[in-house]
Amino acid sequence: MIQPAAPLSPPSRILLGPGPSDVPPSILAALGKPTVGHLDPTFLAAMDETRDMLRAVFATENELTFPMSGTGSAGMETCFVNLIEPGDRVLIGSAGVFGTRMAEVARRAGAEVTVVEGEWGRALDPERLLAAGQGGAFKLLAAVHAETSTGVLQDPRELRRVADELDALLVLDCVTSVGGVAVELDAWKVDAAYSGTQKCLACPPGLSPVTFSKRAVEALSARSTPVQSWYLDLSMIRNYWGSERAYHHTAPINMLYGLHEALRLVLVEGLAARHARHRTNAAALWAGLEALGLELLVPAAERLVPLTTVSVPDGIDEKKVRAHLLREYSLEIGGGLGPLAGRVWRIGLMGSGSKRANVELCLAALRSALAEQGYTADNDPLAAAAGVYAAD
Amino acid sequence: MIQPAAPLSPPSRILLGPGPSDVPPSILAALGKPTVGHLDPTFLAAMDETRDMLRAVFATENELTFPMSGTGSAGMETCFVNLIEPGDRVLIGSAGVFGTRMAEVARRAGAEVTVVEGEWGRALDPERLLAAGQGGAFKLLAAVHAETSTGVLQDPRELRRVADELDALLVLDCVTSVGGVAVELDAWKVDAAYSGTQKCLACPPGLSPVTFSKRAVEALSARSTPVQSWYLDLSMIRNYWGSERAYHHTAPINMLYGLHEALRLVLVEGLAARHARHRTNAAALWAGLEALGLELLVPAAERLVPLTTVSVPDGIDEKKVRAHLLREYSLEIGGGLGPLAGRVWRIGLMGSGSKRANVELCLAALRSALAEQGYTADNDPLAAAAGVYAAD
Repeated sequence: MIQPAAPLSPPSRILLGPGPSDVPPSILAALGKPTVGHLDPTFLAAMDETRDMLRAVFATENELTFPMSGTGSAGMETCFVNLIEPGDRVLIGSAGVFGTRMAEVARRAGAEVTVVEGEWGRALDPERLLAAGQGGAFKLLAAVHAETSTGVLQDPRELRRVADELDALLVLDCVTSVGGVAVELDAWKVDAAYSGTQKCLACPPGLSPVTFSKRAVEALSARSTPVQSWYLDLSMIRNYWGSERAYHHTAPINMLYGLHEALRLVLVEGLAARHARHRTNAAALWAGLEALGLELLVPAAERLVPLTTVSVPDGIDEKKVRAHLLREYSLEIGGGLGPLAGRVWRIGLMGSGSKRANVELCLAALRSALAEQGYTADNDPLAAAAGVYAAD
Repeated sequence: MIQPAAPLSPPSRILLGPGPSDVPPSILAALGKPTVGHLDPTFLAAMDETRDMLRAVFATENELTFPMSGTGSAGMETCFVNLIEPGDRVLIGSAGVFGTRMAEVARRAGAEVTVVEGEWGRALDPERLLAAGQGGAFKLLAAVHAETSTGVLQDPRELRRVADELDALLVLDCVTSVGGVAVELDAWKVDAAYSGTQKCLACPPGLSPVTFSKRAVEALSARSTPVQSWYLDLSMIRNYWGSERAYHHTAPINMLYGLHEALRLVLVEGLAARHARHRTNAAALWAGLEALGLELLVPAAERLVPLTTVSVPDGIDEKKVRAHLLREYSLEIGGGLGPLAGRVWRIGLMGSGSKRANVELCLAALRSALAEQGYTADNDPLAAAAGVYAAD
């Protein structure tokens, strides 16, 4: 007979990895508020507020905007299974784990996928996307706005230009951008986008906000085959989030409380102020890392503010460094994925985790961890970071 | 510019509908514990404990046992998309919303589906399933153990007998049974099962525990096509829950804290004691409802303990009754779905919601709501319920 485990007492971490990021107390408190029914009038009102606030952070008027009941990858799959019918052609720009994942998800949805592979750590070249797409009758072009595996920001306006040339829908992965850097879906004419809660929204993982343009909704309506996933079928889920309130699946009530509070905190701070905060703290981190003699993987012009990839110096055991940070500072940073495994660290300054105290602690902790392996730098990373704050 | 909403202050409800059910304070508190990373050593240990406790509540030794990152319907879809390849034949017994949903999900996964329709409010006849399946080369037989839309309990041993005759895998929907009535997956030789968190486990909605037998795992390994859903592909997710700890998607950390605590409470109480508690409270509710002159939809021998369907008397506006309960008592019960809409109420006594105080309050509230519409009964429902407790 299996005995019950002891109650959990998770440690207080400082989460500076690729997500989840640190969760503010009021969001944790929201998760623990009393559960109500998924058709309770008070909950329906909270859903409407959540949708309005999601539109604000996506900068869209899209009617079809709500959180899917799964993590970011469920949001990705939602976009592809709803917009693709078997045999549709899809063009995907990929230079990281999440671009690669997009291609795999699209293939499983029955698409004929053309992938334009870019260098990991660099933005995609729109001209190569255009060349690969020309004459191809592509239904959609998809790429990642903020590639969490490499720390690269892609310009969606260039993607839109390519999609316009190809007369294709544009699907954008905004998992690590929403709430941390400018996301302007209507201005950019993005047709479908998805995000996650556990990055710059600073909510625990578990939901994936999605949004679909009018043109994307027309594509949904024009389908001749059912969506292969019942769970992710927007034609049904929209009837629950819409005025019909038709039961589809039982909404994850308490996670939605958390998202409601997370969106509230974003709007209370203001999007512009929040993005500026993320920029300043990232600039201070970058200055400190460079003072430590560490190289950043991504050129400054293509660098993603909320997530920084740092090359591991020769001779350093990167896992030992992360273990030192966790043990001595209760501080988490991420390792590399795929071809970057063992070669980079990933440092996230996301949501409420993006603050001066975390930047300076992270730099001090890294210096200490590197010193343990005999690596020392000539310059003072904390002074370099302080210089950025002083100039701000 | 959209303004931030006010912080949520959800009301304290008594949730006696079809789920979510009332969530105990320690589970709500667990949801709000500090978020850690999905590869944090303390979290990996919590995952192992969660898996062990899940095996206990499923009464299985199945290696492949863990919660999917979605609600119960995601668990249903997980079973079908992983076990089915296009063209596979599937036999489904359906006498309610969730049997109907199974057939739809299986079709979308590419199965050739044969449905044996039963009467809503009655158990399925195994002989009819057998007759429909004979000579059919069915890969799997699927049915609902506890049909939440009708309040019927199906005997899995009879389903297994049919599946054995057909040499088919047996898939069982245990959403409303786990934690409330006996579930003995290994003894019953069930090959795949899924549940939800928001019923008799008394945790908020958002996760779906699943489990797969050795024979089911062999079927997964023998696939010649990829699973159509990337998000639900067990061949990858098992590498995160297994010793490899390979990243697939970011686990919903805080929801998993909640499930860990929910499972802990089940095992602290003990499965046998918990099932007995559910039985006693249901018996008291049934006695009280009958004293009120109300008819129960399901014959006693096929009745589901955690969820009772009550026929709405002629001339009663059932929505007004539910509105009265919510307004005057902050008490939620459910309405009917599909062909039972407007014809039944659904009263759940699930998890920690299954207690004497709730039974008696529900009976008193129903009596009051019915009296508002001029309906009175000769007998005292509270006395009838008290009689059951006295005899217990």
